[in-house]
Amino acid sequence: MGVAECLSRIHARDGAVRAWAYVDRSATGGEGPLAGVVLGVKDVIDVAGMPTTHGSPIYADNIAAQDAAAVALLRAAGAAVLGKTVTAEFATYHPGPTVNPRKVGHTPGGSSSGSAAAVADGQADIALGTQTAGSMIRPGSFCGTLAFKPTIGRYPVAGVLDTAPSLDTLGLFARNLDVLVAADAVLGGTADCPAPRAPLRIGLCRMPTWDQASAEMQDALIDFAAQLHEGGCVLSEVTLPEPFARLQDAQMLIHRTEAAQVLGAIRHEHPGDVSEEFRAMIDAGTATDPADYAAARAVQDECKRLLPAVFAASDLLLAPGAPGAAPEGIGATGDPLFQRIWTAVGAPCLGFPAAWRSDGLPLGLQVIGLPGTDRQLLADAQTIIAHAALKEA
Amino acid sequence: MGVAECLSRIHARDGAVRAWAYVDRSATGGEGPLAGVVLGVKDVIDVAGMPTTHGSPIYADNIAAQDAAAVALLRAAGAAVLGKTVTAEFATYHPGPTVNPRKVGHTPGGSSSGSAAAVADGQADIALGTQTAGSMIRPGSFCGTLAFKPTIGRYPVAGVLDTAPSLDTLGLFARNLDVLVAADAVLGGTADCPAPRAPLRIGLCRMPTWDQASAEMQDALIDFAAQLHEGGCVLSEVTLPEPFARLQDAQMLIHRTEAAQVLGAIRHEHPGDVSEEFRAMIDAGTATDPADYAAARAVQDECKRLLPAVFAASDLLLAPGAPGAAPEGIGATGDPLFQRIWTAVGAPCLGFPAAWRSDGLPLGLQVIGLPGTDRQLLADAQTIIAHAALKEA
Repeated sequence: MGVAECLSRIHARDGAVRAWAYVDRSATGGEGPLAGVVLGVKDVIDVAGMPTTHGSPIYADNIAAQDAAAVALLRAAGAAVLGKTVTAEFATYHPGPTVNPRKVGHTPGGSSSGSAAAVADGQADIALGTQTAGSMIRPGSFCGTLAFKPTIGRYPVAGVLDTAPSLDTLGLFARNLDVLVAADAVLGGTADCPAPRAPLRIGLCRMPTWDQASAEMQDALIDFAAQLHEGGCVLSEVTLPEPFARLQDAQMLIHRTEAAQVLGAIRHEHPGDVSEEFRAMIDAGTATDPADYAAARAVQDECKRLLPAVFAASDLLLAPGAPGAAPEGIGATGDPLFQRIWTAVGAPCLGFPAAWRSDGLPLGLQVIGLPGTDRQLLADAQTIIAHAALKEA
Repeated sequence: MGVAECLSRIHARDGAVRAWAYVDRSATGGEGPLAGVVLGVKDVIDVAGMPTTHGSPIYADNIAAQDAAAVALLRAAGAAVLGKTVTAEFATYHPGPTVNPRKVGHTPGGSSSGSAAAVADGQADIALGTQTAGSMIRPGSFCGTLAFKPTIGRYPVAGVLDTAPSLDTLGLFARNLDVLVAADAVLGGTADCPAPRAPLRIGLCRMPTWDQASAEMQDALIDFAAQLHEGGCVLSEVTLPEPFARLQDAQMLIHRTEAAQVLGAIRHEHPGDVSEEFRAMIDAGTATDPADYAAARAVQDECKRLLPAVFAASDLLLAPGAPGAAPEGIGATGDPLFQRIWTAVGAPCLGFPAAWRSDGLPLGLQVIGLPGTDRQLLADAQTIIAHAALKEA
């Protein structure tokens, strides 16, 4: 697409979808591998000359002096920087006005709400997002678009809001896998294109939270695995070792504790301008016993060490992308209970729509790779995507 | 319990649970059938001399001149009116600060958030709530207490906020069935105590939204039905006739359309003091095509006419009380997709905890009766409750 087509789409749809915090109607792209690609930037990431509000009224007038490193790289590669996309407050839980473009009474997920909605709805080709708990894969699942959370640290985070430094991960939404692969090369600095592994060995991973998935999500996962099997993939079941059952709670404790450290000052200096959810999270994080934090980090480290064994017989794991389809209402962004553990171990995850309900909402899954294998995962994704239910806006 | 015990419990727990919008520390009870019973009142219902804020800063200073009819009846029967409980904004979706007393990082549900949490946590014996979509049965399910939404119109609604008059229903939370039966007699005006039906015929009703329930909720329903069967109840499966598949969407349209009629002025006079969720709901309701509203009411009427056939072979229906356990986070109150249809047909529903997860959260179910059979339902509830997993605070 081009800037004109995206602006036209925004004109037609923004009143309903409300994905954007700021739009530069004079945006233009340049030459390079991303020429013609239109970019949206989550509003916790700096774009020179545009406000970075972090989804908070406290930062309404916070104009960025320079591009974040990732924005500068994408711009230099030719992408047109169209504007800033709505984020939940400080990339945590309190949502902005964005609705799900597939069904407007439902949440788009969050915290990367506007990035997921804008890309799914054809208002941008790609968008930057961040994930600390489940802020990319969940909105991708709810909105029905590709969401790629690479290995932690793969994309540079200078100019991106810190919310929990041992978990914060920068990533990309896209509708088209080739465009995603090109943008990943720009941001990741490694442009190799390995051949897809064949036969691809898929580990069906129900995760410790399986019983909290909706029946239709469980069915979507089982059905999709069957399609991969028919398509020539080798399927097996992968049960995560015991420490992973403790990783969900450990991630939550690490998240709130580190958030209290880096965002606590905002909560205390502006108590009337933060949401109840944010206040409660920060206060809980402030109260963490240091011994509990150390224990949670030990669980995280133990799970990271166990990853090679988890992937011993599988090239990729296949898991739900969310507990179900996007919940009704825009007051909250849904539950990250199918993403926290993968964020905590820093593993690359690619979310994609696997099936669609009759009401227009998608059911999204994710594949997970070993940390550091991002380019191989994106190559293997061709095999996955051949069976996925990608749908244009 | 008495007022002193409740105040002591509030002192110990209110910092965490935050169920109350206002507490009268000098509250006293009187003589009568509810002597010794301590009452909380959802903050969309007037209590003389206390603020009725409707969960909105717009009404922070709105002191009620007189008791709502239901409060006056309960007070006259001896109940001590301890205070006002937190409601979601205008009894719709934007939550207040209340957390789930069984697991504080999780929502208590809503909009009757504080009433459910206070009763579940032993801070009151009974509490008044309202249900227009799923505002009583869902928080009862999430908090693990009895929630009774009687036949629409059974309890008097003078002094209660109108939000969608063809759906608004006043009801009660309680921990103890005998206390609930006594309070229902006071409010409903019929104090008959029919014998429990035996053998009780239970219709297991998966509802059109069954696939959106979590696997653990589905298991809880099946397991509880098996317990009732072993206990001598006659079990059968009840499939709702086709119009019920359209009732969920019809209820949503009726809800937002009537809300726009009765609450639209507030949204337009105070645009900066209402939530995004409220604004979006009112704007969507304002845009309803009158023909669509008429069609939705026709679906509602058709389903009401079909109810005797639905109950032909069942005394009560048994259904999930919510899609699953209380979701993480307090930014939203969960999805009412297992309550809307029963509210729309005005049928009495009793919610109760059927099982408990290892993390302390309950899985709640509901039984549904024919409209007008409230006293019989409460009598039959003795049979149900004998198998339920009631748990003290």
